[in-house]
Amino acid sequence: MNPVLVQLRRGTAVESFHRGAIAIVDADGNVHTVLGDIDRPVYPRSAVKALQALPLVASGAAEHFGLDDAALALACASHGGEPGHVATAAGVLAKVGLDARVLECGTHWPSHEASSRLLAREAAEPNALHNNCSGKHSGFVCLGCLMAREAGSEPEAFVRGYVSATHPVMREVTAALQAATGYDLAHAPQGVDGCSIPTFGIPLRHLAHGFARLATGLGLSPGHAEAARRLRRAVAKEPFMVAGTGRFDTRVMQHFGERVFCKVGAEGVYCAALPERGLGVAIKVDDGNTARAAEVVMARVIGALVQRDDADAAALGDLVRVPLKNWNGIEVGQLETAADLLIAH
Amino acid sequence: MNPVLVQLRRGTAVESFHRGAIAIVDADGNVHTVLGDIDRPVYPRSAVKALQALPLVASGAAEHFGLDDAALALACASHGGEPGHVATAAGVLAKVGLDARVLECGTHWPSHEASSRLLAREAAEPNALHNNCSGKHSGFVCLGCLMAREAGSEPEAFVRGYVSATHPVMREVTAALQAATGYDLAHAPQGVDGCSIPTFGIPLRHLAHGFARLATGLGLSPGHAEAARRLRRAVAKEPFMVAGTGRFDTRVMQHFGERVFCKVGAEGVYCAALPERGLGVAIKVDDGNTARAAEVVMARVIGALVQRDDADAAALGDLVRVPLKNWNGIEVGQLETAADLLIAH
Repeated sequence: MNPVLVQLRRGTAVESFHRGAIAIVDADGNVHTVLGDIDRPVYPRSAVKALQALPLVASGAAEHFGLDDAALALACASHGGEPGHVATAAGVLAKVGLDARVLECGTHWPSHEASSRLLAREAAEPNALHNNCSGKHSGFVCLGCLMAREAGSEPEAFVRGYVSATHPVMREVTAALQAATGYDLAHAPQGVDGCSIPTFGIPLRHLAHGFARLATGLGLSPGHAEAARRLRRAVAKEPFMVAGTGRFDTRVMQHFGERVFCKVGAEGVYCAALPERGLGVAIKVDDGNTARAAEVVMARVIGALVQRDDADAAALGDLVRVPLKNWNGIEVGQLETAADLLIAH
Repeated sequence: MNPVLVQLRRGTAVESFHRGAIAIVDADGNVHTVLGDIDRPVYPRSAVKALQALPLVASGAAEHFGLDDAALALACASHGGEPGHVATAAGVLAKVGLDARVLECGTHWPSHEASSRLLAREAAEPNALHNNCSGKHSGFVCLGCLMAREAGSEPEAFVRGYVSATHPVMREVTAALQAATGYDLAHAPQGVDGCSIPTFGIPLRHLAHGFARLATGLGLSPGHAEAARRLRRAVAKEPFMVAGTGRFDTRVMQHFGERVFCKVGAEGVYCAALPERGLGVAIKVDDGNTARAAEVVMARVIGALVQRDDADAAALGDLVRVPLKNWNGIEVGQLETAADLLIAH
């Protein structure tokens, strides 16, 4: 039974609460913090996009096609489908002479509401570039185009079907995930993600270990270690690209820069690499609530492990204790971590 | 510790799960089913709108101002802000010579996405009529206008501030909630709801009891018993008004008619009156997830207690076991109640 991590307090009572587990691990796999069951496999969903982007850089594809910081940050992103995200994804595909039709992530309206309404106002419809995963998929396409070139194949034909677990691109991506987490994915639970690529059940202990390696490069191949540094730097330079206006990951990295790399996943998952501490973090909220539970826990973890001055505390302020306002703007409650949730520095 | 009620299964593993409690009670307060803690006060939020609408009918205001079935169903609704909902709310206010400016529920974009985009496409902005609670609030305004008439006061001045716990309208509404549930609200936990009226912490046992009374009229005053019948009939005749296109309450009541009155509330609450069984139902999901957890449980409860033929089973089919599709339309998982969740007929 996992402990209560987050409570929603309304008026004079706790209205709802979220249970879950937290693993904080160093690059040698030593555990800094355990709360709850960190050995049950959980689907990390989009939280591992940075690990899945390692081959894009390590293969030389990013350099070959001239991907800049914005493009690399977008490859690690669950973005809001804002105009800047869409243009960057389109730009990546243009570099390999392709367009949105090559993407196999499916289409949804931008999660950034104002961008969605902007699209509606223009009587336009969303396409695959608006999908929150379009940057990751554009990265997969670039990787595929380099592999095609090396194989002497026609790029568009080669990349087709890249979301399948057995496609050469996805094999490379899965191998990077397995190498970073040290978990045998061939025998892991397996499902299909929202964007149609495979997602593998991986224990929080191993996810946190993978992020400690992302933070430090220790335990990664030299190529992946260098790619990890490159991706962390890109996201720190272009934090808007990794999420979007007002979003947690963007806000945190706008303030902390390379001191924190954090990444949201669907269904209550959050992962982070904390380079200055040499630690990786992995969180899963049992009920799958990311936005209001996993985020609050991640803010608390960053506060405990990385915060060092008042500016850091201020940056985390309304992420650690989230005021809830109603439709008249009245503060009716707040989200905060459970009083007995202790994360040692 | 409440039991697991609902699981999300993706691929070969359970990805997330929801704990909570269920009370099913008859009009004498006898318990038919208990799962989990049904004595902890929970905020029922919008699930009790029908109980809060009893004074609108019992006072004679609904008849005096000529409110039809659609208007009464909307008074019990958490609607999607679709054009039909907005027009009906505006029509109710027009009957008392007022308009949207009298509403104190605040404004939000329609939760029905296509209606939201329609509004954006017209370069329009939402107003208080689009708030999911605008029907309930319009009912409060009608009640206030009748009270003003009886007091010889100017209606608009009289109704101002009706969301306050101490306003004569809200006193009447709270008294009806207390009478139906038999729970002392003066000493209950109290918070402010999304639409700015008070919400009171009430144990599921008492909420279910209140809905058994709504189902049967037993234990209510004659005026409230007649009002309960009137409201249940109105919602059965106009199920679109109580929620909207494709929504759970609308779908269930389109099929079951007066055999089921069910009503969603925020933060994982669901209540129902089952007249042919003389039972009331109250559900709270610990983590506050209504749409994918409380709904699935309610579908299962209706299936166990009310379903009698294949047509009933078919109507509940994809509400009891909800397929989850990704952005490419691939079924990647499903929501269903926990295998050991037993609801006796």
